[in-house]
Amino acid sequence: MRPGGSSADGQGSRGDGPGSVTIAYIAESAGVSVPTVSKVLNRRSGVAEGTRARVEELISRYGYRKPPGTRSNVVELVFRELESMWAVEIIRGVERVARRNRVGVVVSEFGLHDSAVMSMDDTVGRRPQCVLSVAQLSEAERAQLTARNIPFVVFDPIDELPDDVPFVGATNWRGGRAAVRHLVGLGHRRVAMISGPDHPFCRARVAGYSSALREAGVPADPGLLVRTLLTREDGCAAARDLLSRTERPTAIFTANDLQAIGVYQAARELGLSIPGDLSVVGFDDLPVVAWMDPPLTTVHQPLAEMAIAATELALAIGRGEEVPQSGLDIATSLVVRESTAPPAD
Amino acid sequence: MRPGGSSADGQGSRGDGPGSVTIAYIAESAGVSVPTVSKVLNRRSGVAEGTRARVEELISRYGYRKPPGTRSNVVELVFRELESMWAVEIIRGVERVARRNRVGVVVSEFGLHDSAVMSMDDTVGRRPQCVLSVAQLSEAERAQLTARNIPFVVFDPIDELPDDVPFVGATNWRGGRAAVRHLVGLGHRRVAMISGPDHPFCRARVAGYSSALREAGVPADPGLLVRTLLTREDGCAAARDLLSRTERPTAIFTANDLQAIGVYQAARELGLSIPGDLSVVGFDDLPVVAWMDPPLTTVHQPLAEMAIAATELALAIGRGEEVPQSGLDIATSLVVRESTAPPAD
Repeated sequence: MRPGGSSADGQGSRGDGPGSVTIAYIAESAGVSVPTVSKVLNRRSGVAEGTRARVEELISRYGYRKPPGTRSNVVELVFRELESMWAVEIIRGVERVARRNRVGVVVSEFGLHDSAVMSMDDTVGRRPQCVLSVAQLSEAERAQLTARNIPFVVFDPIDELPDDVPFVGATNWRGGRAAVRHLVGLGHRRVAMISGPDHPFCRARVAGYSSALREAGVPADPGLLVRTLLTREDGCAAARDLLSRTERPTAIFTANDLQAIGVYQAARELGLSIPGDLSVVGFDDLPVVAWMDPPLTTVHQPLAEMAIAATELALAIGRGEEVPQSGLDIATSLVVRESTAPPAD
Repeated sequence: MRPGGSSADGQGSRGDGPGSVTIAYIAESAGVSVPTVSKVLNRRSGVAEGTRARVEELISRYGYRKPPGTRSNVVELVFRELESMWAVEIIRGVERVARRNRVGVVVSEFGLHDSAVMSMDDTVGRRPQCVLSVAQLSEAERAQLTARNIPFVVFDPIDELPDDVPFVGATNWRGGRAAVRHLVGLGHRRVAMISGPDHPFCRARVAGYSSALREAGVPADPGLLVRTLLTREDGCAAARDLLSRTERPTAIFTANDLQAIGVYQAARELGLSIPGDLSVVGFDDLPVVAWMDPPLTTVHQPLAEMAIAATELALAIGRGEEVPQSGLDIATSLVVRESTAPPAD
């Protein structure tokens, strides 16, 4: 249809003018997929050396450059669900970097079901500088972004990701270890943990709990490790069960602050005082936990710093810069408030 | 410079082709300002009848149409500060309407100082469908948006606005009245109110408080009405003072939930139990107040509904639709939990 193009639909077109080729044309010429060419362009791993060399030769021969001006002046920040109380912290961090770079931040809530597909189409259609996805990014979504040459970073991933997917997370293992070191340091020996579903970040927090007990020579009691959902209600139910036992724990470490709020409720119901009868440590440091009665000792997740790092990483990848690492975990820190004290006995 | 144009800088240009004029050209021809032409185009009030007729005649003569395709596919949601815990509710409401309309939501934090000017330039530069501004929009900012023909709605305005500025708020007076009706219904007579700075929404909540007392034949005691900041710390300090008096109030209504959280702290310090010794009613219904000990009775602000209404209003204005009203207050509702009970004496 278009003079000079090798196909009508643009997929195999050499582009709009002399010296300009599309990424699809390079892929076709090299006999590889579009995502593979994109990986080579973005200096990402996961491409065999021979393939990489062939693609680079073609890129150089055709003088391929990322098309200028094809990206709009926004970054896309994608949430599955905006419910979470930490969304604002994340938005603020992204916003701070975006403002410095004079780009806008489009915030989307994808939902967990069918609408996600349509939402990703809309996101891609807005041609953002980059995409930051909170917690998740499916293989199909990653392929869609790679095919359009839109760089992405997964923020605080909840699932296992391939090694070449850039991410920014928190030091969950260190955080769990710091929480339980604090408790055993106060003299606690019957330390329970209420954890969440079998996601890597929960596994890391549990591993930190186990490490700190081991370090302190406290024998692990598998009965004191409970797995449930990361909600206030489930934290409350798990604590009710733990605290009704004859040999009840003197301290509970929870995988997140919502569960810790549930532990407070269970303790109230059972007439146990915090920290007199029970020490509690949470994880997250939601803005509200400092106002609880007593204020909660918890592991601070540096959400704003994580968001800043994720945005800078994504923008750097988008500019084609060589980034020193494709993923990083930002340090958590223990915030000691008034919900922890030495055990009574 | 450009053949056919009447000036070089575009300010007075008739536009890009026959039959197409700019809004600035119409303003110049009519001898009025650009904002005035925009008001006429958007069927807003505040234009003298003679002026309106002259501008409409010119619009009709030159066949002016809002330039197609000059707006990008986003709405801009502007916060002064993203700190507030209700930001997520607002974003979710805007997001829901935007998704249905297949437009993206750009979330910006303007800050309270100099950077606001630059931020508004960036916002305008993104050519959004419309702007939703949370709590504030200065006269200069409104003029800037009007000049670019970008419709805007002020969300939950904290300051007095001219009559022709579209807004969506909450029924603050009704909310305050419902809170205090509930307290006097329980038998309270010494009902204090901790209010905030002298903004219209605080004045309305105070007026609701006074109305409910008057209705119930409870004489107003000016000493029981305290004005302070809308923070937890100031709520706590005000409550400490109120509760240390010989004739202490048996109930406190606060202008927001943060102040109510402060009242809880003051009561704890003074060894007063809620609701045994003191009933407390807040305003906002932040997600956290249902988890407090005891769960807080409060006036629910329908933030998501307000955000939905504001987005729909702004998009309708943007489409040039005749909107039935330029502003509206969405109904608040009292959520009775466990912080209120009949007085002890």
